[in-house]
Amino acid sequence: MTKNMTKTMKAIVQTEEKVTASLELQEIPVPTLKPGEVLVEVKAAGVNRADLLQTQGNYPVPPGASEILGLECAGVIVDAGDTGQTVGREVACLLTGGGYAEYVAVPEGQLMPIPAGYSFVEAASIVEVACTVWSNIGMLANLGSRQNPTFLIHGGAGGIGTFAIQMGKALGATVAVTAGSAEKLATCKELGADILINYKEEDFAEVLKNKADVILDIIGAKYLSQNVKAMAKDAHMVVIGMQGGVKGELNLGHLLAKRGTISATALRGRDEADKARIVSSTIENIWPLLESKKISHHIDHTLPLAEAADALQKIQDGTVTGKLVLTV
Amino acid sequence: MTKNMTKTMKAIVQTEEKVTASLELQEIPVPTLKPGEVLVEVKAAGVNRADLLQTQGNYPVPPGASEILGLECAGVIVDAGDTGQTVGREVACLLTGGGYAEYVAVPEGQLMPIPAGYSFVEAASIVEVACTVWSNIGMLANLGSRQNPTFLIHGGAGGIGTFAIQMGKALGATVAVTAGSAEKLATCKELGADILINYKEEDFAEVLKNKADVILDIIGAKYLSQNVKAMAKDAHMVVIGMQGGVKGELNLGHLLAKRGTISATALRGRDEADKARIVSSTIENIWPLLESKKISHHIDHTLPLAEAADALQKIQDGTVTGKLVLTV
Repeated sequence: MTKNMTKTMKAIVQTEEKVTASLELQEIPVPTLKPGEVLVEVKAAGVNRADLLQTQGNYPVPPGASEILGLECAGVIVDAGDTGQTVGREVACLLTGGGYAEYVAVPEGQLMPIPAGYSFVEAASIVEVACTVWSNIGMLANLGSRQNPTFLIHGGAGGIGTFAIQMGKALGATVAVTAGSAEKLATCKELGADILINYKEEDFAEVLKNKADVILDIIGAKYLSQNVKAMAKDAHMVVIGMQGGVKGELNLGHLLAKRGTISATALRGRDEADKARIVSSTIENIWPLLESKKISHHIDHTLPLAEAADALQKIQDGTVTGKLVLTV
Repeated sequence: MTKNMTKTMKAIVQTEEKVTASLELQEIPVPTLKPGEVLVEVKAAGVNRADLLQTQGNYPVPPGASEILGLECAGVIVDAGDTGQTVGREVACLLTGGGYAEYVAVPEGQLMPIPAGYSFVEAASIVEVACTVWSNIGMLANLGSRQNPTFLIHGGAGGIGTFAIQMGKALGATVAVTAGSAEKLATCKELGADILINYKEEDFAEVLKNKADVILDIIGAKYLSQNVKAMAKDAHMVVIGMQGGVKGELNLGHLLAKRGTISATALRGRDEADKARIVSSTIENIWPLLESKKISHHIDHTLPLAEAADALQKIQDGTVTGKLVLTV
């Protein structure tokens, strides 16, 4: 591994704390491989809202993880380290950080094949959302093993939502979505959503009272009571975002009447074994849906790695309707 | 089944709404069997706190269930109905109601063998607690498949708690309990509890901060925030009682930092298929622990069926330290 330590690479570095605009391309050392890691030459890196939060100081980097931004990428293995991987293999990667760079060190368990027919850019755009939605809805809430389930997705028109709608339909669910405009709901409908709720005009908890078997929530506290009201018997709600605050009132009597379950999770802080388990199950269950086009993805546009600050600014401004991908 | 409809039996009937003392032994028709049910001659019926709540009007009978009290019994099959069961077989039964009587109709999926070496009285005392604790802690929260788990039990000296301590130890957990007196904690220690917390003297959330992998809670709202604080990563808390109220504040940010899960459940309202699934898993996993004496039970005393009102009054007064069983 010594050979890497003498090399340098271009990577995005934040030069001023909490200032997204201070991201700039610098020359820094190529990462050193730890046991079980491979070195991947990054061809494309997905841009996530979490990256923006990280530059603002609102998403602490897990201990031991790269300080460089970037939770997903696609590229080519250039050093297999102590693993049995093949140099030259094209891979998509779930990262704990480090994707906004020419090279990134990746634990072997977080390598995924490039879905058949996918470009590097397309592959880099799908890893984080696929692992997030599948781990929560497929693995934790067991959507696929439920009988004729109703699956409620908040923020149906966002990156998480558009993926979740298609996955829900592929698993046989009736899909209900909330969104804040007729235009966004039309997007949800095109992707297959069955029940369209404009939260500015209707109370989703009334529309879906006692009907939602699985709920994917990005709102948090503001929707907590309504989500419990919307739950069917034995429902499982998973909270993965808290755009509506963190502290809410929970009526345990109402939850017990539904025999309901509430989980709140995040992918990034999981340990390597847990990530490997999720990556493996995601490849098994989601990759076929990508390859058969049952789940499609929408890339807004690509930008060169050097324009990372601009990419995050666009996310901040809310002017992006699909995924942004950085090309290296 | 017509033969039963001409017969009568002695059963406990409540003559005045919400008045526990109005329970009296009356002569009423023997229940008619529905498809899939057998008729059991009751030899012993367990007394539960839920029975008291039901007489007080605070535990509604599920639609279609017997209005007669009694959630568990042991006895002998006297009519196999349309099932393949054998008349004369001795059984323990999980009931949705009807145990305080000479005869009860039982869905086949809710029949259990009498554990080897158990009397009818002993068998009738263990069904409800075994199915409740196993379904929540073994099946839902997966205590048995966790690595060196810490299992926190609130109300360790009660009927649920004493069973849960022994089951936790049998599954290899470090068991922590809360109770309100040194005497009660001594009982918990004798049963195998490792960490003893007097909630009048110590804050359990400080003692167990970030350490509890599974929590069995009977307190509800009052402990909600503290339970989240006590949770380890990937912890699962199951609320099965709400002696401390129903409405509590839930900080979803704290829950997400633990990747925590909260469920609230009750056994009685589950449908027959679900109860059959639980009964089957409880026989498989818990009956061997009863037969090998890894889990023992404590019967305070028995009373004749006619004294049901007295039995519930004793539970109300809090003068009982073990299980009460009615003999028929």
